[in-house]
Amino acid sequence: MNEAEFVAALRQLPLHPGARGLEDDCAVLEIGGEALILTHDSMAEGTHFSEGADMADVAWKLVAVNLSDLAAKGAQPVGILIGYSLGEDDESFLKGLKEVTETYRVPLLGGDTIKASSARSLGLTAIGRASHTPAPDRRGAQIGDSVYVTGTLGKAMLGFEGDPECLDAYNRPNPRLAEGQVLAPHVNAMMDISDGLLLDAFRMASASKVTLAIESALVPVASPDRRDACLRWGDDYELLFTLPQASEPPVDCTRIGAVEPQGFAALVLDGEPVMNAEGLGYQH
Amino acid sequence: MNEAEFVAALRQLPLHPGARGLEDDCAVLEIGGEALILTHDSMAEGTHFSEGADMADVAWKLVAVNLSDLAAKGAQPVGILIGYSLGEDDESFLKGLKEVTETYRVPLLGGDTIKASSARSLGLTAIGRASHTPAPDRRGAQIGDSVYVTGTLGKAMLGFEGDPECLDAYNRPNPRLAEGQVLAPHVNAMMDISDGLLLDAFRMASASKVTLAIESALVPVASPDRRDACLRWGDDYELLFTLPQASEPPVDCTRIGAVEPQGFAALVLDGEPVMNAEGLGYQH
Repeated sequence: MNEAEFVAALRQLPLHPGARGLEDDCAVLEIGGEALILTHDSMAEGTHFSEGADMADVAWKLVAVNLSDLAAKGAQPVGILIGYSLGEDDESFLKGLKEVTETYRVPLLGGDTIKASSARSLGLTAIGRASHTPAPDRRGAQIGDSVYVTGTLGKAMLGFEGDPECLDAYNRPNPRLAEGQVLAPHVNAMMDISDGLLLDAFRMASASKVTLAIESALVPVASPDRRDACLRWGDDYELLFTLPQASEPPVDCTRIGAVEPQGFAALVLDGEPVMNAEGLGYQH
Repeated sequence: MNEAEFVAALRQLPLHPGARGLEDDCAVLEIGGEALILTHDSMAEGTHFSEGADMADVAWKLVAVNLSDLAAKGAQPVGILIGYSLGEDDESFLKGLKEVTETYRVPLLGGDTIKASSARSLGLTAIGRASHTPAPDRRGAQIGDSVYVTGTLGKAMLGFEGDPECLDAYNRPNPRLAEGQVLAPHVNAMMDISDGLLLDAFRMASASKVTLAIESALVPVASPDRRDACLRWGDDYELLFTLPQASEPPVDCTRIGAVEPQGFAALVLDGEPVMNAEGLGYQH
């Protein structure tokens, strides 16, 4: 099975109402008048990090990509649980874990440490508290909204390729926690960009049952000569969101398009309809 | 590093107060007047299940061992997040996941599905709501308490060895959720037995700063000829707890010993001090 087939099968199981139909990156658990935000992302050696990767960077990224999911919900981090496989360079992993948990002030709640016999998979569950309810949803984009993105896309791609200026963008992404909390009361839809702007915009449009029309020339990119690659590569962990047309965005960001009535394509790029998500970005 | 060294290093990181010093199987997160119980356990191919294992059984066990941690806290399951690696026999995994989630009425909250390049590691985070606060702790055993265990130990060992009567005990353990909730208001200390009675009793005694004196002849075992193996093998997921001496246990269980002042050994077995945990049970 591929990921889409597996997730479709999971949707046939008993789902918690807070699972949002498994269409979002996080679950929202309402309890005692609060809304907890829960997310779990895994990283596998050979798929998400290479055998020779600095385990301090791996630890940073494992935590940061989960915090990025919390950021897209406007949540404040409460704590993390870690599923760790012992192996090479555990000391470096601990060093990176210390750095990232101190930087984002997210304490350890618990987890599990195992010995695995081969390539390692690491898992992390991050828990946050919604700063504003209802927590933003990728399903909320409204016709007439403007579409915005934070930051500059493509830096992670350049970092992966070895550009010394961009190594940290790839190895040590910064989750947009502050921006997410400021934006949460204002946005109609929000998500983080982990798999490339185009693929994630396609997903937001599909989940919201609208069309997102994006002008590629408006998107801030790290390498204008390779604009298309910057829009597709992913791993940037910026925020993609929509605001009512008359709203002034409360954070530093760029308007890159508009929300239109649902047409026959979920995404319109520079006036051209994009019919399906195949090849749009990084599917993993 | 081994697991103990790694966990000792984790204790140097910023810990959430609910992490209980990483000395318990679960974290306790107090929020909005409720206490949420959080646990994460992983299972790796080659370590926790064999390459040819029925993935339906693996799914069951992955969920059940986490629910067993919730049971030891007297918690009602709220939901699970799953970290899954695609591979062989995904359909069987889904079948087992459906069976276990329906049996214990625990809905899916979310998770992550990845492709891994080699042997698989699966992770699960289970979330419960404490039925009684404070939630039971393995650190609470009091001098003079009686020590109890539910069920019969060693069945999982016999199942692993192929005894047809005991296959389910190994492949499809039953977390003691109902017993845990009934016991929670009464116990001074409680934990589930995942790594063998003797090792887990040693851990409870160490965490509680007392000595547990256990009479092996009192312990209900599945194979009296191999009593010692039944006490060490693990994977039974029964509950180990202590009650004040005058208390009548509110569930079906067996008294196996008493809590004594902390001596020079954490565990006394049939009058003989057991000085350290090495070789006592299953360390993984």
